[in-house]
Amino acid sequence: MVKGSAVSKHLVIFESSGKKGYVEDGKTLLEAAQELGEDIESVCGGKGVCGKCLVKFDKELCARYGIESGGQPLSPPTEKEIELLSRHGFGDEYRLACSTIVLGDVVVFVPEMSRREKHVIRKSTVERVIPVKPAIRKYYLELSPPTLNALAADYHRLAAELGYSFGLRIVGIDYAALSNLSSVLREGDWKVTVTVWMGQEIVRVEPGYIDGSYGLAVDIGTTTVAGYLCDLQTGEVLATEAILNPQVAYGEDVISRINHAVTEPDGLATLNRVIVDGIGEIIASITRKAQLVPGDISEMTVAGNSAMHHIFLNLNPEYLSKSPFVPTIAKSLDIKSRDLGIGLDKSTNVHILPIEAGFVGADNVGVLIAEEPYNQDEMVLIIDIGTNGELVMGNREKLLCASCAMGPAFEGANIKFGMRAAPGAIECVTIDRQSLEVKFKVIGSDEWSTASSSVKAKGICGSGIVDAIAEMVKAGIIEESGRFNRKLVSPRFSITDEGPAFVIAWASEASLGRDITVSIDDVRAVQLAKGAMYAGVRILMEKLGVTELDKVILAGAFGSYINKENALAIGLFPDCALERVYSVGNAAGEGARLALISLDKRREAEEIARKVEYVELTVEPEFQKYFVDALHFPIPNELNSP
Amino acid sequence: MVKGSAVSKHLVIFESSGKKGYVEDGKTLLEAAQELGEDIESVCGGKGVCGKCLVKFDKELCARYGIESGGQPLSPPTEKEIELLSRHGFGDEYRLACSTIVLGDVVVFVPEMSRREKHVIRKSTVERVIPVKPAIRKYYLELSPPTLNALAADYHRLAAELGYSFGLRIVGIDYAALSNLSSVLREGDWKVTVTVWMGQEIVRVEPGYIDGSYGLAVDIGTTTVAGYLCDLQTGEVLATEAILNPQVAYGEDVISRINHAVTEPDGLATLNRVIVDGIGEIIASITRKAQLVPGDISEMTVAGNSAMHHIFLNLNPEYLSKSPFVPTIAKSLDIKSRDLGIGLDKSTNVHILPIEAGFVGADNVGVLIAEEPYNQDEMVLIIDIGTNGELVMGNREKLLCASCAMGPAFEGANIKFGMRAAPGAIECVTIDRQSLEVKFKVIGSDEWSTASSSVKAKGICGSGIVDAIAEMVKAGIIEESGRFNRKLVSPRFSITDEGPAFVIAWASEASLGRDITVSIDDVRAVQLAKGAMYAGVRILMEKLGVTELDKVILAGAFGSYINKENALAIGLFPDCALERVYSVGNAAGEGARLALISLDKRREAEEIARKVEYVELTVEPEFQKYFVDALHFPIPNELNSP
Repeated sequence: MVKGSAVSKHLVIFESSGKKGYVEDGKTLLEAAQELGEDIESVCGGKGVCGKCLVKFDKELCARYGIESGGQPLSPPTEKEIELLSRHGFGDEYRLACSTIVLGDVVVFVPEMSRREKHVIRKSTVERVIPVKPAIRKYYLELSPPTLNALAADYHRLAAELGYSFGLRIVGIDYAALSNLSSVLREGDWKVTVTVWMGQEIVRVEPGYIDGSYGLAVDIGTTTVAGYLCDLQTGEVLATEAILNPQVAYGEDVISRINHAVTEPDGLATLNRVIVDGIGEIIASITRKAQLVPGDISEMTVAGNSAMHHIFLNLNPEYLSKSPFVPTIAKSLDIKSRDLGIGLDKSTNVHILPIEAGFVGADNVGVLIAEEPYNQDEMVLIIDIGTNGELVMGNREKLLCASCAMGPAFEGANIKFGMRAAPGAIECVTIDRQSLEVKFKVIGSDEWSTASSSVKAKGICGSGIVDAIAEMVKAGIIEESGRFNRKLVSPRFSITDEGPAFVIAWASEASLGRDITVSIDDVRAVQLAKGAMYAGVRILMEKLGVTELDKVILAGAFGSYINKENALAIGLFPDCALERVYSVGNAAGEGARLALISLDKRREAEEIARKVEYVELTVEPEFQKYFVDALHFPIPNELNSP
Repeated sequence: MVKGSAVSKHLVIFESSGKKGYVEDGKTLLEAAQELGEDIESVCGGKGVCGKCLVKFDKELCARYGIESGGQPLSPPTEKEIELLSRHGFGDEYRLACSTIVLGDVVVFVPEMSRREKHVIRKSTVERVIPVKPAIRKYYLELSPPTLNALAADYHRLAAELGYSFGLRIVGIDYAALSNLSSVLREGDWKVTVTVWMGQEIVRVEPGYIDGSYGLAVDIGTTTVAGYLCDLQTGEVLATEAILNPQVAYGEDVISRINHAVTEPDGLATLNRVIVDGIGEIIASITRKAQLVPGDISEMTVAGNSAMHHIFLNLNPEYLSKSPFVPTIAKSLDIKSRDLGIGLDKSTNVHILPIEAGFVGADNVGVLIAEEPYNQDEMVLIIDIGTNGELVMGNREKLLCASCAMGPAFEGANIKFGMRAAPGAIECVTIDRQSLEVKFKVIGSDEWSTASSSVKAKGICGSGIVDAIAEMVKAGIIEESGRFNRKLVSPRFSITDEGPAFVIAWASEASLGRDITVSIDDVRAVQLAKGAMYAGVRILMEKLGVTELDKVILAGAFGSYINKENALAIGLFPDCALERVYSVGNAAGEGARLALISLDKRREAEEIARKVEYVELTVEPEFQKYFVDALHFPIPNELNSP
C-alpha cells in the first residue's frame, strides 16, 4: 500500500502473466486489470452478469510473492456474486473480477478460461498455436432508456453505448438486425446482447444476456460436404457432420458437374439449389447434435475447390474448364446468408475463402494456412489429387502453385471397375510376388479377402487402384513401359474385349457376379494421371531451382487413404523419405475452420492466395517431354537385378 | 510552338475556363486537358466510343488569342470520329478531344455538355448552384481478354482496369452483379460498361457501351407519393409521377397508420407491402414516360416523415407515437433494393435520407438542404404543417427543431366536414363583411360558387378551413375568444346537435345534400392546432433570443395551397412581412432529388440532421402558458376600432 498520497494505492499482481502495478483503493479487480494491461474476459463489460471474469484468490499465493496482509485485501463477495459463482459451479476461492474491490495489496490468479485471448493448438506436421479471434463477438449492454431529455434514436443509443463500454466504433447495423431493434430493446427492458461483426457492424440484438457464440465451417468437397460447428469463444469443435455432396447425382467429378451446369437447362440453378439444401441438412443435424438451433450460428465460412466455390455462389463455372481457365473472382467474399439462401439468421455473414488461380482453390488455401510453408525454410510440396491435381511448392522465399489435368482415374472414374470411396470399394490390395495371388480389403470391412470370406467387392476406388498397380509393378506383372509381362503365367491373366486384364477379385468375390479386373486401359489411365502429376512437380522444382523435397504433404480425402509407399512406388511424386510424407486429411475443412475462429488466419489466407505464383503447366515448353518421361513405372531393384 | 527541345511542344488554350499550357507534340486534346487540369467528360476513358468529349475548333477563336497558324494545328478527323459525330448530329466544327492530336498551337472551346462537372440551378427563396455528383457513375472499358500468360480472374481484371484507366480504387462487387459477370464480359467481347457506386463498389456490368445513367427520387408523403426520374449525368428531371399513398385505405393520418401497424395482425407488413407496391407502380409508369425500363435506374433515394420512413423500412413505428417519441434509427441508410423488395435491378442502392428526431423527419431535412439556413445570417422559420407541426428555426449560428401535436385539423380530419385535399373539397372561402354571404372554390373547378353555379362541394380541406376561419374572424363572426358573435344576424347561423355552426355551403351547393358548416367544435380544433404551433414557434424564438423572423418558409403540400395572409390572420405563426413568407412546395421530394444528384447534398443532409438541436416542447415549462395565450384570434383593426 502506498501511503501519504491523497488516495491510497495498492499493489495488484496478476498471475500467471506477471502483470503488476499500483491501483487506487476502491477500484475493482477488472478495472485494475484494464489499467495494468491484463486481458480479462468480460462479455458484460463489468456488470456482474456474464460471470466470465473469474479470478482465483488464495492467501498462499500472496505469501509466495511476499505479500502478507493481516486484513482482507479484497471486498467480501456480494450475494449476487455468490449466486452467480455457485450457479456456474465455482467454489469460494473464485471471485468475479468486476465485483471485487481492491482494499489492499493482493495477488490473483487468472485462469485460462478467463483470459480474453484464447488459443487453439493445431497439431499438424508442425504444431501451431492459433489465437482465437473470430469475426463476431457478443457484448452484453444495459442501456438507459430514452427520456424526454435523452432522445437518441434506438440505434444511436446502442452504438454509443458499445463505444462507451467496449471502445467499439460502430459504423452501421445490418438491415435484418435493424428491423426488430426497437421491439427487442424494449422486450429486454433495455438489457440486450449485441452481436458485432468485425468490431463495427451490429448484426444481431437479442433481449437479455445470451451466453455462447457459435460458428459453422463448411468444406464443400466434390464428393463429401463436411461441417464443423465451433464455439467461437474457445475455438473448440462442438460437433461435426458430413454428407455426400448431393450434386453427385449430376456427375461424379468436377468436369461433369461443370458440364451439367453449362449444358442442361437450369443446370447451374439445380446444382446450386441441391448444395444449398445439403448445407441446410448439415445445419439442422449439426446444431441438433450440439443442442443448439440454427439461429445460434453467428458466422459461417466456406471452402471448396474452384468449381464447388463457383456453383455454391451461383456463378457460371463454364470458364473454369475452358482455356485459359480463369475464375470469376478469386478474392475472399463476405456475403449475407439471406443472399445465398442459407437458412441461418438473415444477417449472418458467410465468409468464402479465396481461391488461388484456376482450379487451385480454397482447399489448397486451407493447407497453406494450416501448414504455413511461407513461414518455413524447408522445401515443401503439397499435393491434392483429384480430377485435377493441385500442387503448391515452396518455402518462405517463394511459393508456386499449379494444376494438372490428371483425369479422374484416382476418383474411380475412367477405370473399368472404378468407383467412389464408398462401402464395397476395394481400397487395399496385396499381390504375392511368387504365386501372384491377390488379397484385398473393401471399405466397410476390416478383413482381408480369403477364399472363404463373405466380403463382396463392388469395384475399386482410388487408393485401391494405386495399391493394385503398385503391387502389379512390384510383382513384375506390369513392366516399366506399362505393358503386361507376357512371360508370367497366372489364371488371373485374362483377355477381355478391351484387351488384356488382370483379375483382382474373382466373380465369386464380387457383388456384381463378374471378375473385377485391372485392364491395360486402366494402367494407361493411371500412367497418364501420375505422369502429369510428376511432370508438374518436376517443372515446379526446376522453377524453384531445387533437386529434392524436404517434405511432401498429401491433402484431401484421397491423400488420407492412399498407401504412401505405393504412391511412391508408382512414381506419383519424386522420391522423398517415407517419414517425410504426411497425410493431413481434409485441408479445405481445416482452412474453413481456421478462418472461422481466427481473423488473422483469414487475412493470411487472403494474402497468401494472392502471393502464391501460379504456373500454367500447359504453356511450359518442357512439360510434354517430362510428361512422356514420367509415364514409365520405376522398376523395383529386385526385379532389375539379374 | 517551343523549339529547340528534344520534343516540340505546342500551346493549348481551353475556352471558356482559360486553362492553358504547353503539351508535347502528338498528344491528344484529351490528354492535353488532363495535363492542364481541364475537366472534360469521358465515359469511355478516351477510346473514341462514348462521344462525350466534344470540343469546338474554329480559326477565328485562335485568331482572337493571337494564334495564327498557317497549317493545321489539329490532326484531321478519322473516319470513326466523323461517323460518331454525325451519328450524334454534330457538324464539322466539332471534334472528339480523345481522337484529335495536337500538331500546333491551338485554342479549343469546351461546351457546357462536355464539362465533367455539371451543375443544376435550384431556384428557391435563394438561388443555388448544385454540382451534379451522383453516387453512381458509369465507365466504359475495353479489357484485354485473359490468356495463359495473363490469368487474372474476371473481377480482378475489371477492378484493375478501373484503377488504371479511371484512377478508381475498387474494393468489391455486389453479389448480384458478380453472379453474371463472367457471361457478360464474354458476351460483350470484353467491352463493357461498368456502374460503380461511391467510386468503390461495382454494382453492375453490362455488355458494350451503354449511354445514360438514371436515378429515382421518391418522397413518401402521408397522402401523396411522388417520384422524380432524373438523368444522373445532367441532374435534369426527365419525368415525374405521383400517386395517392395506398396506405390511405388504412388511415388518413400518420397516427392512424401507426395504430394500424401496431394493433392489427400483420398491420405493419400490410402497410409496408402496399407502399412498396405503390412505389412499384410509380417505377413502372415513370420509366414508361421517359421511354426507359426499371432496370435503367441505378440509384434511388427516399424521403418521408418519420412514420412513413419507418413503415417503408418495415420498422415498428410504435415508439414514434409514444413518449418520448424516439425513432429506431435516425441516420441515413443505404440498403440494396432486393432487401427492400423494390423491383429494380437487385444491386441498386436505395439511399434513405436521415431523420432529425421524433417526428421531424426527412421532409424537413429536404427543406434544410434546399434552403440552407445553416449558410445564412437571416433568422428563418421553416414550418411543415400536418398532424404534427414540424418546425425548424435558426441560421448559420444555430438551428433548432421541434414537433408539436396539432391534431389533424389541417389534414381535414377532426373537422365535421373536413376532408383531404381532393376534388370537391372547398379550398378557398371569402365572406362578405356586410352581408356575411359566402363564396367558395372547390378543388377541380376554377369558378367561385354562385347561386347558379353547378359546382358541388363535398367537404372542406385544410386550406379551406384556414380561409373559412380567417374570413369568419375578419367578418366578426368569430370573436377573439373563438366564440360566435351572437349579435350578428344571418340565415347562415344554425344550431346543430353539436352546438352553433355557420353554413359555408348550402345543401343545394353540396353533393352530400346537406349544409356544409363550420361548427364551434371545428373552430376549437383549429384553435388548438394553431395555438400549439404558435406556442412552439415562441419557445424556439426565446431559445434563440430573437423577437422577430426574417423569413417564414411553408413546406409541404398544405404550405403550397394555404392562403398566407389568412394563415397570418388566424395567428398560425408570428407576424412577418407577407412578402417574406414563402411556400416551397414538396420539400421532401426536393430533398430526395438533391440527394440523388449530389453526394455533397447527401453529406450535408447527414451533418445537418445531426447538428440541428431538437427541442422537446412538452417539457418546456412555458409551453402550456404560451399555448393558452395563443388560442385567441388576433382581431383585425377595423373591428377593434370603435
